[in-house]
Formats: sequence, structure tokens, C-alpha cells
Amino acid sequence: MPTRGQREFFAVRTLGEALAGFRPARRTGTERVPLDDALGRIPAEPALAPHALPGFARATVDGFAVRAADTYGASDGVPSYLELIGEARMGRPPEIELRPGTAVEIATGAPLPPAADAVLMVEHTQSALPELVEVVRPVAPGDGMVRADEDARAGAELAPAGRPLRAQDLGMLAAAGLTEVEVRVCPRVTVVSTGDELVPAATRELETGQVRDSTAPALAALVREAGGEPRHAGIVPDDRDALAANLQAALPESDVLVVSAGSSVGARDETAAAIASLGEPGIWCHGLAFRPGKPTLLADCGGMPVIGLPGNPRSALVVFRVVGMPIVRLVGGCTHPPPEPTVSARLDRNLPSAAGRADVVQARVHDGVATPLFGSSSLLSILTAADGYLVVPEAATGLPADSEVEVILYR
Amino acid sequence: MPTRGQREFFAVRTLGEALAGFRPARRTGTERVPLDDALGRIPAEPALAPHALPGFARATVDGFAVRAADTYGASDGVPSYLELIGEARMGRPPEIELRPGTAVEIATGAPLPPAADAVLMVEHTQSALPELVEVVRPVAPGDGMVRADEDARAGAELAPAGRPLRAQDLGMLAAAGLTEVEVRVCPRVTVVSTGDELVPAATRELETGQVRDSTAPALAALVREAGGEPRHAGIVPDDRDALAANLQAALPESDVLVVSAGSSVGARDETAAAIASLGEPGIWCHGLAFRPGKPTLLADCGGMPVIGLPGNPRSALVVFRVVGMPIVRLVGGCTHPPPEPTVSARLDRNLPSAAGRADVVQARVHDGVATPLFGSSSLLSILTAADGYLVVPEAATGLPADSEVEVILYR
Repeated sequence: MPTRGQREFFAVRTLGEALAGFRPARRTGTERVPLDDALGRIPAEPALAPHALPGFARATVDGFAVRAADTYGASDGVPSYLELIGEARMGRPPEIELRPGTAVEIATGAPLPPAADAVLMVEHTQSALPELVEVVRPVAPGDGMVRADEDARAGAELAPAGRPLRAQDLGMLAAAGLTEVEVRVCPRVTVVSTGDELVPAATRELETGQVRDSTAPALAALVREAGGEPRHAGIVPDDRDALAANLQAALPESDVLVVSAGSSVGARDETAAAIASLGEPGIWCHGLAFRPGKPTLLADCGGMPVIGLPGNPRSALVVFRVVGMPIVRLVGGCTHPPPEPTVSARLDRNLPSAAGRADVVQARVHDGVATPLFGSSSLLSILTAADGYLVVPEAATGLPADSEVEVILYR
Repeated sequence: MPTRGQREFFAVRTLGEALAGFRPARRTGTERVPLDDALGRIPAEPALAPHALPGFARATVDGFAVRAADTYGASDGVPSYLELIGEARMGRPPEIELRPGTAVEIATGAPLPPAADAVLMVEHTQSALPELVEVVRPVAPGDGMVRADEDARAGAELAPAGRPLRAQDLGMLAAAGLTEVEVRVCPRVTVVSTGDELVPAATRELETGQVRDSTAPALAALVREAGGEPRHAGIVPDDRDALAANLQAALPESDVLVVSAGSSVGARDETAAAIASLGEPGIWCHGLAFRPGKPTLLADCGGMPVIGLPGNPRSALVVFRVVGMPIVRLVGGCTHPPPEPTVSARLDRNLPSAAGRADVVQARVHDGVATPLFGSSSLLSILTAADGYLVVPEAATGLPADSEVEVILYR
């Protein structure tokens, strides 16, 4: 176990190093889920079309199925005339074969009869006799229709692996008759809260000095947003052995372990020691060069990511959003995370920062103006008042007022 | 019931008119849910703090609780000396009262003893004798601590009504001991599919002319994204009476009704007639001046919104995203919809459009370049290939290549 002396040996990493370099091997398995439950889930393999879609040539306008060649040269002055020999029925196999010089009435969505290669819009015809179609504009092959494989060829990729399934992806899978999809199991993310001052959120009356555990329920929500399945292992005292025992117990039923750490320096040492005892190679970094994430601890314990969060609720939530959620997505096989809402805004004041350290700054945004919110990192109200956050990069020594910044918005 | 002649009477509306003007009265009731299930739910009333938070003055640094006045004038050259009279215990009511000239050791998060008004960082002291604190920098009242009501005053609004609850809001509610929250019931959105060509998605083998119902599962996903509870009433033939009976049966257990309509002109008339029979004032618009939403029908039947979607799957999904999801949110009491992810991009080709009609155009986005995707509105593959969509406004007659456009991204 690391002592104070050894601890200095562990590197402090930048945010970019952590996001690119901390990649424990753990990945969840797969399961089959019905389409109804598949929104946002991560396909384990690309979903392929079992057959061509729509599967038959289909009208996309109301009108007449024709051989395009029969309409060439038609105009208002010199119409062509086609013999109307029947109607294509919606949802039924075609019963009529098109011969040269004939047309079949067809509605949007109905299957083209054999030998038809275009659909003439009803607007481009005139009614002559009931059994005759007067064509006043020519059509080219393929006009007014889709081919049998125009939506997808047999074997085409309908949805890629690694990208959360969107509404339209589910529609496409349904069109192909794929009513179940093989997806990654949601990573089980166990949160252990530590801190002698913490009591469960359900505690009605507090003694002076006690605070309710606000971090665990908020982390659970962030875990869900990242596609994970949150579990709360309860509140453990700031004690190395109690914490180690608790973490050990959580190991078999977890894919990611999160310690919402005690906030004092001593508690952080206890946390580091308990995490280091979980497995090799162990602690990957013992500090991140970003505010408010300095005391963050990342460890790889036998392939399982373990994240030690700062003790302040606000710092813990910022770190988990910026560093933890990508780890949950990684373990859950999400290689194409969904885009985040952002907005460009003008800073309404100077924003000081130290070079060599990225700053995550909470902000309100109104009418294109971003107002940074300052205050102790123990205050959750800074986060609840914020519309989003901006990142002052490591290289910058702050940003002057009127800078154009990109604010990542909370939803 | 409207006939062909009466139908002309109904106005075609713009997208803006529909979003601002179509506001049926129906709102869902309220229910209490535990915090664990409250992510994204809509508070029915503002959540108020039952008491001040954190509830006691708290250290935000490791160091010594002091009377700030005792440190005035201290410097490296002329330190002040304070008598160390004990330690503030984490999570416990203070047992020691601070007298002038004394200090109490305190860790981040612990309660300040009575009469202390600042916490001196351990870094700004030097160790003299064990029972003496040597102060080399003065502190001001309030330094190194938060006040008892600094996170929230008693009665302060912790989360507003009408905005989906975010992770940090749940944390704040937990901190206040509010483990349940009064939220709007999720709107029940019933989708009725019509079309003689439609068969359930689970159909293994298709006959030529049959298509699987891809719209219903995709709409269900969009309903969920908008905070609704989707229900599928099944597939009804293109028949006025059958559709009317089905819609009537769905009324008592729905807050919003959606008809995924047959695609032919005749089917649209049947749908309009069936919807008009559901209640007063009835049909609000029978067409939207936007592509691909032209055949959209909006009705207010006794306060319940009824949405008739175009028959093409792609058009139906675009219309429901642009017009339907805001209606679901309205009924569910969501007055502050979450921000959508967007990206600015340069159009890589000319985009034609007709003035007086808004165009929703699907697009891929890569390296800041938007490539519009064209093709029949019957093709779902245009939607699954798209990263997002852009809107060519009603006033524009298209956009030239190299225009800067804002693409709303799918997640």
C-alpha cells in the first residue's frame, strides 16, 4: 500500500492524458433486447439487413405505373395515350403485367406491376376517356418510385456497432423485421460514499455537522445518462479497512467502481490505500491537473476502472461528468458518444486561471452572454444555477472579458 | 364530417404558427416519485428548501477555525500566535467554544465551533509549539468556510417547476432531505398505425406489397425522448369507421393521440374524417407549409391534441420530432425543454427550396461541412444516414453552397 512518501511517486495527469490514456480492459457482455427497450442502447455488432428494403419496387406518388419509354416526347401539345388496364392494390402482390402502351393506376406505397419502370404523377396526366390515360409530360425510368433495394440492399449495415440506437435506427430495424437487437449489457456502476459526516438522504433531522449524501443520487443520474446501471453500496466511514472491505464486496457485481471520497486530506489517503489494495496494476494517477478535479484518483484494478472522486459534491459531479461518464461509456462499448448541446457565448467578465491547469467553470447563459459562477466547490447551488460549463484550457492563463467561449449545456 | 369541399376551408399553417398557436388544454396530473426515478421528470411545483443548507457553518479548507480579528496584521515577519484548544470533529456538533486568541483544528467539511468566523488554511500557518498556531497571513471573516445558509436559504427554490430534473438538481433535493418529488405524470401517447400495406414488425416473411410498421416503434422512441409514455394501438385498415372506432377506444387512456396515416390521398381523407369525429373544436390545421410535413393534420378534440402524420415513415418521423415532441412536452408540463445539440457547418452544395415553405433537410456533418441528403421521403435510410437536420426558413428560396448553417444533431 502506498504511504505518504510513495504517493508522491504517482503522476498528476492532465485531463487530456486521462481521457486518452486511462483505458482499463473491462467491457460488458451482450444481451438481446426487444426494440421497445432498445432506445439509447449500444449495438454489440452492426445490425445487417436480412433482405432488401423495401423489398419491392414501390410508388412514391399517386398516379399511373408505366413503361417510361411509352411517355417519351409527350407534351401538352402532343400528348401520348396509354390504355388503363387496372389498378395496383395497396399491400397486395401485383396481379397485372404491364404491356407496352398500357398503364396501371397506383397509389403512393403500392407495388409496381412487373415491367413498369416509372410512375407518372396524376398531375401530369389529363382525363380523356375512363379507359385512357392522356400523358402530357414524359417520365424517366425510376421516376415516382423507389427500387426494391433503394432503402437497403440485402446485407447492408442498418445500424453501426458502438453508437447509441436512435429513434430512426429502431424504425429501420423494425422495417427489416429485426424486433430484437444484440446490445451491450449496461455497465454496473457501484458508488461507495465515504465520510464521517455523511448520513443517508432520507435522514429527516440533522445534527450540526451532519450532511445528507447528495453526491450518490446525483452520480446515479449521471451513470444513467452515460448508459450505466447505478448501484449504491451505502455510506462507509472514513476508515481504510471498512472502505477496502466494502469495495471488495462490491467487486463481483460491478463493472466500474466509484468512491465518493471523504473530503479531508487524511480521508484521501485512506481512499487511495483502500483502492490500491483491490488489484494490479492499481493506481494510474493520483491527481488531475484540472479544477475542480485535483484530488481525483484513477485506478485499474484487474481491468476494472476505479474512480476516486473529490469529496466536495460539486467537484465530484464535475469530475464524474468530465472523466467518469466517458469511462462508463468505454466499458459499455459506446464508441460514438452522443453529441452534447453547446452554445457560443460572450464572456461578461475576466476569468482568471493558472497555466498548466484546465478549469471547468460553471456558467449561466442568457442572450448569448455567459456569466461565470464562482463560489466554494462545496456548494451544489453553483451547479443547479448553471446552464452549463466551459473549459479554460491548460495553456491559457485565464480568458479576458468579451472572449467568445463555447458553453456545454446541461439537459 | 368534412367533405372534400369543406376540407379546402381548413387553413394550411406555417411551422411557426403551429408551434405557437396549437395549444390544446390537456395537461397531465401529478404523482410523487422517489429521487431514483426522477431524472428527466418535470416538477409540478418549484421544490423549496425546508431548511437552510448546509445548515451549519462549514470549513472548506483544512486548517484552523479562528476569529478573523485575531489574525489581522499577521505576516511572515510578524506572526500572530493563537492557542490551539482542540479539534472540530467531522460530523459531530462542536464541543468547543472559541475564545479570543484561540484556534481549533478543523478539517474540510467539519462544523465551525461557535464564535469562529473564518478558517485559516494550514498552508498559512507554521508549526511552533504543539499547542500554538503561528499565523503568517491574516484571514477575513468568511474565508475558508461557507455560511450555514450559503448553499440555500430556508424556503429557497431548489428546482423550478417545468424544467426536467438534472443530475445536480437531484443532488440538491437529496441534500435537503427531499427524497420524493411531485412531478407531472408522463403523457400517455397512443399511436394508431393505418395503412392496408402495413404488417407488424414481427412479421417474418413479407408478401410483395407488404411493409412492416417501422413508424410506430420509431415514434415510440421519440415519445420517450419527449418524456411521454408510448402505447401502440395496433394497425388499423385504411377505413374511416375502423379508424374512428379505434381512436374512440384509445381516448380514455390517452393524453395525446397520433395517427400514423395511410399514405394515399384517399387514406388522408379517411383519417381527417375519423379525427374530426372525436370532439370539438376539432381540426386546427389540415396541412403545414413545410417539407416533408405538408399532409400533417392537427386537431384539438375536447382539449386532447390529435396529430395526423404523413404516411411516409421519414416524413412522419420528421413531423413528429419538429411538431409532435413539443406537444407531448406541453401536455406533460415541460415549459423549459432541454437544449438540443447543434453544430455550425458549411453547406457543401446548393440547397433549393420554395419560398413560403420551410424545408427540413437531413444532413451528414463531417469536419465542419454539412452534406444534405436527398431522396424519396419514403426512405428511412436518409434518416439513419443523417447526423442531424437543418431548416431552410420559409422566407428563403434555398441556400447557396458555402452558406453557414446550423445543424440540429441527433443523439
